Amino acid sequence: MKLLNYVCDRWSEGLGEGEPLIDPVRGTELARASSDGVNFAEALEHARTVGGPGLRALTYAQRATLLGRIAEVLTANRDTYYRIALENSGSPRSDAAIDIDGAIYTLKFYAKEGAALGENKLLREGELTRLGKDESFQALHIGVPLRGVAILINAFNFPAWGLWEKAAPALLSGVPVLAKPATATAWLAQQMVADIVKAAILPDGALSIVCGRAGDLLDHVTGEDAIAFTGSAETAARIRSHPAVAHRSARTNIEADSLNVAVLGPDAKAGDPTVELFVSEVVREMTVKAGQKCTAIRRILVPASLRDPVAEALRARLSRIRVGDPRTADMQMGPVINKVQQKAVLEGVDRLAQESAVIFGGGVAFQPIDADPSVAAFVQPTLLAHDRPFDARAVHTVEVFGPVATLLAYRDLDEALRIARLGQGSLVASLFSNDPQIIESAALELACCHGRVHVVSEEVARVQTGHGNVMPLSLHGGPGRAGGGQELGGLRALRFHHQFTALQGPMQSLRGIASRAADLRF
Amino acid sequence: MKLLNYVCDRWSEGLGEGEPLIDPVRGTELARASSDGVNFAEALEHARTVGGPGLRALTYAQRATLLGRIAEVLTANRDTYYRIALENSGSPRSDAAIDIDGAIYTLKFYAKEGAALGENKLLREGELTRLGKDESFQALHIGVPLRGVAILINAFNFPAWGLWEKAAPALLSGVPVLAKPATATAWLAQQMVADIVKAAILPDGALSIVCGRAGDLLDHVTGEDAIAFTGSAETAARIRSHPAVAHRSARTNIEADSLNVAVLGPDAKAGDPTVELFVSEVVREMTVKAGQKCTAIRRILVPASLRDPVAEALRARLSRIRVGDPRTADMQMGPVINKVQQKAVLEGVDRLAQESAVIFGGGVAFQPIDADPSVAAFVQPTLLAHDRPFDARAVHTVEVFGPVATLLAYRDLDEALRIARLGQGSLVASLFSNDPQIIESAALELACCHGRVHVVSEEVARVQTGHGNVMPLSLHGGPGRAGGGQELGGLRALRFHHQFTALQGPMQSLRGIASRAADLRF
Repeated sequence: MKLLNYVCDRWSEGLGEGEPLIDPVRGTELARASSDGVNFAEALEHARTVGGPGLRALTYAQRATLLGRIAEVLTANRDTYYRIALENSGSPRSDAAIDIDGAIYTLKFYAKEGAALGENKLLREGELTRLGKDESFQALHIGVPLRGVAILINAFNFPAWGLWEKAAPALLSGVPVLAKPATATAWLAQQMVADIVKAAILPDGALSIVCGRAGDLLDHVTGEDAIAFTGSAETAARIRSHPAVAHRSARTNIEADSLNVAVLGPDAKAGDPTVELFVSEVVREMTVKAGQKCTAIRRILVPASLRDPVAEALRARLSRIRVGDPRTADMQMGPVINKVQQKAVLEGVDRLAQESAVIFGGGVAFQPIDADPSVAAFVQPTLLAHDRPFDARAVHTVEVFGPVATLLAYRDLDEALRIARLGQGSLVASLFSNDPQIIESAALELACCHGRVHVVSEEVARVQTGHGNVMPLSLHGGPGRAGGGQELGGLRALRFHHQFTALQGPMQSLRGIASRAADLRF
Repeated sequence: MKLLNYVCDRWSEGLGEGEPLIDPVRGTELARASSDGVNFAEALEHARTVGGPGLRALTYAQRATLLGRIAEVLTANRDTYYRIALENSGSPRSDAAIDIDGAIYTLKFYAKEGAALGENKLLREGELTRLGKDESFQALHIGVPLRGVAILINAFNFPAWGLWEKAAPALLSGVPVLAKPATATAWLAQQMVADIVKAAILPDGALSIVCGRAGDLLDHVTGEDAIAFTGSAETAARIRSHPAVAHRSARTNIEADSLNVAVLGPDAKAGDPTVELFVSEVVREMTVKAGQKCTAIRRILVPASLRDPVAEALRARLSRIRVGDPRTADMQMGPVINKVQQKAVLEGVDRLAQESAVIFGGGVAFQPIDADPSVAAFVQPTLLAHDRPFDARAVHTVEVFGPVATLLAYRDLDEALRIARLGQGSLVASLFSNDPQIIESAALELACCHGRVHVVSEEVARVQTGHGNVMPLSLHGGPGRAGGGQELGGLRALRFHHQFTALQGPMQSLRGIASRAADLRF
């Protein structure tokens, strides 16, 4: 089976043999993907000239309704998606849910937020403001949908959520989408797009998907297009430096590497429920999706006095995690995405282990349950530790994208915060503390180098949303190493797909425009 | 005289001969600039580790007070700055005022806006929002000042305003500034910084200036720095593609080339006061600062029926402009900035003239008043015209940075708007019309490819702020060719210098933080 590409409102098969998509448990080939022969220039121009006008003819509320219908179609086909996630990503149901139900939840969220924007086709930011010597000449800032294409280049770990968390704000904004999922797991994204196309929900040209390589896609980008990318820092730099992007000022929104921290506050004492909460969260983050989440905890910061009990508790928990074929009942952790990633993760562990001690796992000879290690891509949950975090380098710079994290002991809060900063910009930091003063000061300090700061105290233990879960209400993206991008954050995500412009003119005319604009407020 | 550089809170002279700054009227050397020997790594680190903490220790209101004091010191030294502008930029008083008084006005504006942010040290965007299953777990979006340096790389045409319109929002945000003015006119910026340093207004490390080449400055940029650049699209692409910028996700804000349009609406009739307003505005934009404004009108769009009368009126007005040594009384237009620019402008006119007809000026043998053409850098105001705008290419793609514009005739409003879009993204479009329907529909269409849309009707003729004037209240910057950046726009400018982060945590803690944050509202 070769995954068909959908551009110019037509399905077509890529040329050549294509690249294989593999079952990471059984090692069998599931499908192939090829973008050879896709005319990217035509694909983008069709989206711009057919998809854009079709979407922009609708109001925000109308487009929000379409997002709701997309969510309905995806919900109706959930079983198929779970099956694909099982086969192509080796996902236990709980992992598949994060991706698939997370996508549906995000679509529903934007359907609701979008409805509140009403029957308008543009945004305004703030009120009319007097500009001239009297009231007659004023200024108004408005946002109009970009006339280009939202080019969504995604990572392999979230084929469903990664597509829709990016596509929902674009479509709601009135901007057509061309999705380029990571080849290794493109099947799920492609199946979802196929279902949406079949349901004929969106205007012509509003949604395209290409599976396989990006080819010369970026050569055809204009200053009205917007590129949202999730993936490696290396590819991110290539996108930013691409002549068409750099010369034409196409927008880019990048989410790259991240060395997220979880900090157990200095107020924690051995035996506290907070320590237990912390340990549970770390284990969950290490093992959910086999650690293949850009928000996963990579650096575990604990007070030096709790270093040993936390290490012991983590070891005990990790040793009980059932890792193996997700088709087997009660399996808690599946494989990484393929043999290439398995090798990369094991090499990453080696790099970390050159300066940190492996205190659990790390085994190359690891035996997963009900799977053949010679063909399957499992990695044992692996915990490392380093006792002098300021002397360590790899732990703060190398993102090992698997079930791997490193325990670091700190002496006081100030030191913990300085260790966090060594990541040079990450997506998320979590803090586990019950001391309001520690929470306030640490949260503000962590904010300077993280896109999200997640605070857990005992009182919110049962309702907190999790270190690694990306809520569509909150900004997602981090500074520096993490790419400097911003996704989600409720209606903030619409900024990326609008051109904001200062209108200066006669008060009456601006009042007329303002009355037909949705107020972009948070 | 060699302009001293100020880094690490010390004045020092660059090594070597440096590059000359020239009087563009007399051709004499005024000063030299060299950055050779400047240790940019140290300079940035000093700003980060000394300037940043010093500024961040202050509240927005306190920093706003400092901006007010800067404005006072600059006001006290206005005469010196006018003299430097006369000698180094050949500016008549009215041109110097735009730069110097524009800088002071912008500083005062941010002093006032900043005071309204009160005794706070962080921003919040929106309110607390419930995130969990009950009220106890919430989200709050805050902005904290970047820990890096605002690196301000400026163009030669606004040595004063260009510096302070960028520096004011940075300093107000709590971010130290390193300014790198264009060498050709660095004197004025350097003198201003020298006066501010002497007045000891700012904390140590908050303000640095380097005159001359950028050297290895960008090599030392981190993900916490922010680069604001005004200049050529070519240099902009080099900045974006620089490995340190592309890999570390340093923020960039770019203002590059722009083919701004002024549109005389299809409702205009010969003899209307609006036609007169339009003609005056075009002539003003062509001649103010010898057309060396990034916002200047480059493309003049008129209904075909008015093409000849407008051309005639422009010719008549341009022929009466007094061009020459600004030391002579009543001089209306000075030279361009130097012989290199003069050559570039004349070459640009040649490129335009390959497809457009020169209908006024263009003379290489132009004789300015009281100046020797062999040493002076004057360019005659030059008007071209093209009758088939859709067949023209250079007029939509080549920014000739001097007193040069091209008249284009259109058949109907739709055609006018399509011609405007051929600029592929510009800073500003102006529209001269008295028809509310034309104004509303054209303004929204022009908004998609312009950072500012400026509408003039007869009723606002006396209070409108001018096509080319950048008001600090309004966003400045345009999409696509114009670089995709955003400056000013009131407090919007503070976004660039803050890291915005989603805080998720216990309601009480977030309430505490919110109570100490200034609401970023427009």
